[in-house]
Amino acid sequence: MTTSNNKSLTDVSISMVPEVVIQRLPLYVRLLSHFSNAGEDVISSEQLGSHLQITPAQIRKDLSYFGRFGKQGRGYDVKMLENQLREILGLNHTWNAAVVGMGRLGRAVVSYPGFTPEGFNIVSAFDVSDNIVGQTISELEVKAISQLKKTVEELDIKIGIVAVPIDQAQEVIDALVDSGIKSILNYAPLSPQVPEGVTVRGIDPVLSLQSMTYYIR
Amino acid sequence: MTTSNNKSLTDVSISMVPEVVIQRLPLYVRLLSHFSNAGEDVISSEQLGSHLQITPAQIRKDLSYFGRFGKQGRGYDVKMLENQLREILGLNHTWNAAVVGMGRLGRAVVSYPGFTPEGFNIVSAFDVSDNIVGQTISELEVKAISQLKKTVEELDIKIGIVAVPIDQAQEVIDALVDSGIKSILNYAPLSPQVPEGVTVRGIDPVLSLQSMTYYIR
Repeated sequence: MTTSNNKSLTDVSISMVPEVVIQRLPLYVRLLSHFSNAGEDVISSEQLGSHLQITPAQIRKDLSYFGRFGKQGRGYDVKMLENQLREILGLNHTWNAAVVGMGRLGRAVVSYPGFTPEGFNIVSAFDVSDNIVGQTISELEVKAISQLKKTVEELDIKIGIVAVPIDQAQEVIDALVDSGIKSILNYAPLSPQVPEGVTVRGIDPVLSLQSMTYYIR
Repeated sequence: MTTSNNKSLTDVSISMVPEVVIQRLPLYVRLLSHFSNAGEDVISSEQLGSHLQITPAQIRKDLSYFGRFGKQGRGYDVKMLENQLREILGLNHTWNAAVVGMGRLGRAVVSYPGFTPEGFNIVSAFDVSDNIVGQTISELEVKAISQLKKTVEELDIKIGIVAVPIDQAQEVIDALVDSGIKSILNYAPLSPQVPEGVTVRGIDPVLSLQSMTYYIR
């Protein structure tokens, strides 16, 4: 998949690459996929940048962490770059996820249709409440948190999705970490404490709202 | 509020500033607020950049759309820059919002505790289903979509939050636009069509997941 100019993926130390660079890569993948579907073969860092409003230099710098993808003055091969970024991000296979918190938000999360087509399968659901444990929600039998570690191992769950209220969130995140989960999608509006090596992404609608009021002020 | 070096806010044509620059400003506000609370008075574009993993040049370019905030070699006044960005983004007052779709997701949205402290008040809730219209959810009486335009005017609602399934989303967004709403937070996984002058932000947990698998691949 990689050309001779590219560093082998295993040559790139994960910690070398700034986290925010990694967070931009899915945007590149989505845009490249769009261009690929539109029949484009080659794209320049200027074109990529103009769609994402990122300077071409920033894009070249982001990609340079993983080797040399383009030829000077020639641009990037759209399909090849998309495939390589998918490989780098681990998007070429599926991932199992568990949701903790089966209140309104958790129920919305397990019924969200956008995860499966992208390779993210929610295979298990948990709650702390005795009233909810044992119920079947979106074809998942809700389990007690005490079953978390065992289930994570049995079902090869790699991602935890936190959909509990803010006052339970840290405790649940601790339990996920104890179960061996290293990737957490957090819907609770707090910045949790996690050990090194665990990645947390918050879903933050407030940041989105704050960038819209500019247009109506 | 502005120094003599700054352009008056009204001098900056809204369309001049790339949308993605506007989307980065709330991140700057949040970081500046953090530094301000930590007692820092001055911050450089290098420091801002290192926390957000954006090049200092990109940060200076982003801010330059709105005038000159810092003195060459001196850095930015933390409090002043935060206040100016808040003013630019329209965050110094409150905004009223309506949620459309009172299923699981909509109920989660209206009970989300993170909006009000940031000045976003959900003042009205709507649904298309006769079963749900008339119910009281989180102290809001759910109204029929036919009441949307009237309510938007009466309650000075500026933001619409879309929490309906994907197959109803475009229709609901059209109704919001017809009601005069120009800012839409969209939880449905589609890119809706809207007329010029309407801003839509999608909440996309898939992008967040895609930037975590890098660490576990």
